[in-house]
Amino acid sequence: MFKLYYAPGTCALASHIALEEAGAAYTTERLDFKANQQNSPRGILTETPAMLAFIAQSFPQAKLAPLEDAFAFAQAQAFNSYLCSTVHVAHAHKLRGARWATEESSFVDMRGKVPQTVGACFALIERGMLKGPWVMGEQYTICDPYLFTIAGWLEGDGVDLAILPQVADHRKRMAERPAVRKVLAEEQG
Amino acid sequence: MFKLYYAPGTCALASHIALEEAGAAYTTERLDFKANQQNSPRGILTETPAMLAFIAQSFPQAKLAPLEDAFAFAQAQAFNSYLCSTVHVAHAHKLRGARWATEESSFVDMRGKVPQTVGACFALIERGMLKGPWVMGEQYTICDPYLFTIAGWLEGDGVDLAILPQVADHRKRMAERPAVRKVLAEEQG
Repeated sequence: MFKLYYAPGTCALASHIALEEAGAAYTTERLDFKANQQNSPRGILTETPAMLAFIAQSFPQAKLAPLEDAFAFAQAQAFNSYLCSTVHVAHAHKLRGARWATEESSFVDMRGKVPQTVGACFALIERGMLKGPWVMGEQYTICDPYLFTIAGWLEGDGVDLAILPQVADHRKRMAERPAVRKVLAEEQG
Repeated sequence: MFKLYYAPGTCALASHIALEEAGAAYTTERLDFKANQQNSPRGILTETPAMLAFIAQSFPQAKLAPLEDAFAFAQAQAFNSYLCSTVHVAHAHKLRGARWATEESSFVDMRGKVPQTVGACFALIERGMLKGPWVMGEQYTICDPYLFTIAGWLEGDGVDLAILPQVADHRKRMAERPAVRKVLAEEQG
């Protein structure tokens, strides 16, 4: 039995969807970020790319990653690592500037560049990383809920979805999946 | 036969060491970052965490990751993801501020906070993530060359190694490994 700690609107949504798609037995606990509960000590697994690969490996029958092909698995991991270390980080400069700077003027400057930096990341994804219909091609994988999660922040980041038709299509296709509907209903409930 | 594209002083060092430790047949090509060669189109694998896991899976006899234990493997991946998405990103605010802001004053502000942010990351690593003697404990894994690589930037980031005795010990132990000596000699040659 797994237990997922999450806060609505965060990248935990990706793991939440993957657990549901995997048919895993799991419970959830909603964290209060305002009370800094995410920094409580726990002997648990962190980092979305690691959690997603772990879910895929723990439920091989759900075929959430190309586990039999090390190079294909690595490509899926590379995509998730890009989301984690570049795209999420670009997004984080909108509201989390205090992680990396001190002055209010710097936060304003960082915030102003977010549409451009997140837009550039998604232009790369649109142009070639997202093979279609799913990220890795015909097979739905752990890359899909992660892309769906971060693509859900695009409007808030000031990026025009009209110039990202593949990403917009992917988001629509994801939103129709029963697992995604169920998880969103729970997180938003 | 693998081919590693690298530039000296970058996080490619981690994959370079892992290939050497794995006994892999590989060649290298040095990239000129000033000529922006790292952005040339190639059908290759990117992202250090994905590359390291791929090397470990491709050479299971080298035992560079706990491949038989999905949770232990996930913990190693979580550590590498933390290095990639938090520690490397904190470091990058020293010289790569233009990725996330526009004004010179913001770059100065970001640069000034690097000793604190990178120092806080390494305090976490020192306090509990680095089990010793290697990152994951008794077994040397793909986490070790990655930590060694990023810990090599500490002095340049203005972090005092004296308050990080475990990290300093790990760096020393790594530097004595024949694979590490060989790779450093090549990259620095």
